[in-house]
Amino acid sequence: MTNIHEIAAQAKKASVITAALDTKLKNQILNKIADNIELNISEILDANLKDLENSKADLNSGKISQSVYNRIKADKNKLSEMIQGIRDVAKLDDPVNKTIFTRELADGLVLKKITCPIGVIGVIFEARPDVIAQITSLAIKSGNSVILKGGRETDITNSVIFKIIFDSISEFKEFPQNAINLIHSREEAAQMLAEDKYIDLIIPRGSNKLVKYIQENTKIPVLGHASGICHIFADEFCDTEKALKIIEDAKCQYPSACNAVETVLIHKNIAEKFIPLFTERMNNAGVKINFEKEVTDWAKEYGEKELSVKITDSINDAIEHINTYGSGHTDCIITENKENAEKFMNFVDSAGVYHNASTRFADGFRYGFGAEVGISTNKTHARGPVGLEGLTIYKYKLYGSGDIVGEFCQGKRKFTHKDL
Amino acid sequence: MTNIHEIAAQAKKASVITAALDTKLKNQILNKIADNIELNISEILDANLKDLENSKADLNSGKISQSVYNRIKADKNKLSEMIQGIRDVAKLDDPVNKTIFTRELADGLVLKKITCPIGVIGVIFEARPDVIAQITSLAIKSGNSVILKGGRETDITNSVIFKIIFDSISEFKEFPQNAINLIHSREEAAQMLAEDKYIDLIIPRGSNKLVKYIQENTKIPVLGHASGICHIFADEFCDTEKALKIIEDAKCQYPSACNAVETVLIHKNIAEKFIPLFTERMNNAGVKINFEKEVTDWAKEYGEKELSVKITDSINDAIEHINTYGSGHTDCIITENKENAEKFMNFVDSAGVYHNASTRFADGFRYGFGAEVGISTNKTHARGPVGLEGLTIYKYKLYGSGDIVGEFCQGKRKFTHKDL
Repeated sequence: MTNIHEIAAQAKKASVITAALDTKLKNQILNKIADNIELNISEILDANLKDLENSKADLNSGKISQSVYNRIKADKNKLSEMIQGIRDVAKLDDPVNKTIFTRELADGLVLKKITCPIGVIGVIFEARPDVIAQITSLAIKSGNSVILKGGRETDITNSVIFKIIFDSISEFKEFPQNAINLIHSREEAAQMLAEDKYIDLIIPRGSNKLVKYIQENTKIPVLGHASGICHIFADEFCDTEKALKIIEDAKCQYPSACNAVETVLIHKNIAEKFIPLFTERMNNAGVKINFEKEVTDWAKEYGEKELSVKITDSINDAIEHINTYGSGHTDCIITENKENAEKFMNFVDSAGVYHNASTRFADGFRYGFGAEVGISTNKTHARGPVGLEGLTIYKYKLYGSGDIVGEFCQGKRKFTHKDL
Repeated sequence: MTNIHEIAAQAKKASVITAALDTKLKNQILNKIADNIELNISEILDANLKDLENSKADLNSGKISQSVYNRIKADKNKLSEMIQGIRDVAKLDDPVNKTIFTRELADGLVLKKITCPIGVIGVIFEARPDVIAQITSLAIKSGNSVILKGGRETDITNSVIFKIIFDSISEFKEFPQNAINLIHSREEAAQMLAEDKYIDLIIPRGSNKLVKYIQENTKIPVLGHASGICHIFADEFCDTEKALKIIEDAKCQYPSACNAVETVLIHKNIAEKFIPLFTERMNNAGVKINFEKEVTDWAKEYGEKELSVKITDSINDAIEHINTYGSGHTDCIITENKENAEKFMNFVDSAGVYHNASTRFADGFRYGFGAEVGISTNKTHARGPVGLEGLTIYKYKLYGSGDIVGEFCQGKRKFTHKDL
């Protein structure tokens, strides 16, 4: 087995070097990776056929579902999108070495707050072989080292894509090879979670179960979400057609997405008129409705065309229901009353609070971030869809010329605190 | 014993209300607290005398040190500073409800990124009864709920100060009383660390041992630092007098501070000339020097007038030593060579990287933040001295009028991503 401790230690050392790389070089590397993947598409497709072949037994025995099996597949279209994604990351602004502020603390003593990479990012993902290229390009652009662990089902495809990436970076002698790493087994992943001295952030991309397991088995900060229990509240002042259109989109457009709606709350004052229309619309769309009495768990993420529905006495009850059972992901109010909209958006404690818009908009690309690491329901560091910015932190650079604190304590010098 | 689970749950509910309070009211509350503490100074001093009396046995038996005993004491000066501190927080900008950006995602669909409080903050601190007023006022200003656990040694003083704060907030019916809580025993603190469903952030203020214990015993993010192993590197191009002046200040001005220097690195090319002058200066200042052979642990925080000293072969060796043994707190290079300064500041992976300035400047007040929660050596969320900003996160508000994702996927509508 690979020595994960050594990989992590070397990735940390490499991260000091990647932190200082200039933007032009990073973009050259990204474009080289995209070019080389393009040149080797057939090799990737061959590898993917092997992964699909190997997974067929698991599919037939029911060990993996049809939707997981589908996600293993990397066809030409998916790979073209993946290559375009890498080129898009090259075009994004460099998030590193940006000056947040420059402040004169005292005459001749200047403080700068500058963005920098976090350091070493561990990424654990399932199926979907395009994740490896996406995350690696985000890591390179943000100057972080990365240790990747993909799913067993796509191990052959991942290894081929990783080799192309690794060969590409190796053409640039300024880029430290130890910054990009792929590990394979579960045991190695478990060891990685223990390397809190060297790894600064873990990003899990996968099932609820995977994310929960990781959250419970590491001291390293974890960025992401275990579940997406999104709500839509049809307020007493809602426009019925808007509500039905948004609920249908939020449930049916991609039912297994984390930003799909799971629970619809309906104000009691409109329930009598609203429910028949709602029921008809959901029936036509093939959505199963579970009314209050049939719901045993308000924090259930269906992941398919199924909804929990509750009649609430007031907007306050709706807000309290969401803050109690929601996952802090994305929640929406449908109303024509602006005061109620603002109340809902201020008091619902979620990463995304929406007025008259589908919860499905919660996504880094749709928010205009260009690329996304994932969606966070954390309350610290980064919340909601996370782009390149979420892979950075900052450091303080202080420029003096022999300045000491003693002179300030003795009153010989004074702080000016003037922003420059 | 108090039901900590219930306290945390109620604090969470209250945090939704404090998040939406307006700035004027929050400032009124802070000024009322300052006024009421001022009116009750003698009661606080009486309580403090009891704490001092109770701790005398521990002092005599050596269970607590003289410096801990000194920190228990709250005299009139300290209380005046504490009161002024609360009034200063009232004058600071409100960190909540600030618009980070407003972006048109598509025609009629507008996304706002808005700062908001984190939620519920747990604070565990030792000795120093002024911390309770400082942290509570920062929590009120930033709209967070807070659960405070003070040291046993100052429990009587803390309880009196807390009662004054609590009575003050109770005069404002808009302010939810459950937002401010004081707990007392170790068992309660341990229970608090388990409430990761309701508590969003833990801030420990105290010894290395306390912070490490907390980091190892909670799933809640911890903001702070366990140790401050700060370095000063005397480069081959350093101005000797600047170096000696800065090292003396960084070690002697307040030796037990986390930002005091612990290790001095000296470039071999100047060692012969530098060391006799350095030794003389340290001797005069009463600082004990441990040269390389006498040092058994390069990550030792002396906390008193004592230093580790190492001769390094190059600036690269100095950087590597710091990245290996440092705590990522604050590290300084003394040099007249600007390239070396920038190299050091780019490659040393610490919250503060200084050129020709004492490490003792690492402090929220000195950085111009007005007040500080503590100093963080984390690599995510907040790094270095943390002011009010570190107690906030953001949420995304999306304003639509019936917008659905389906129409974008079908190509009927297009994203514009225009910053407004």
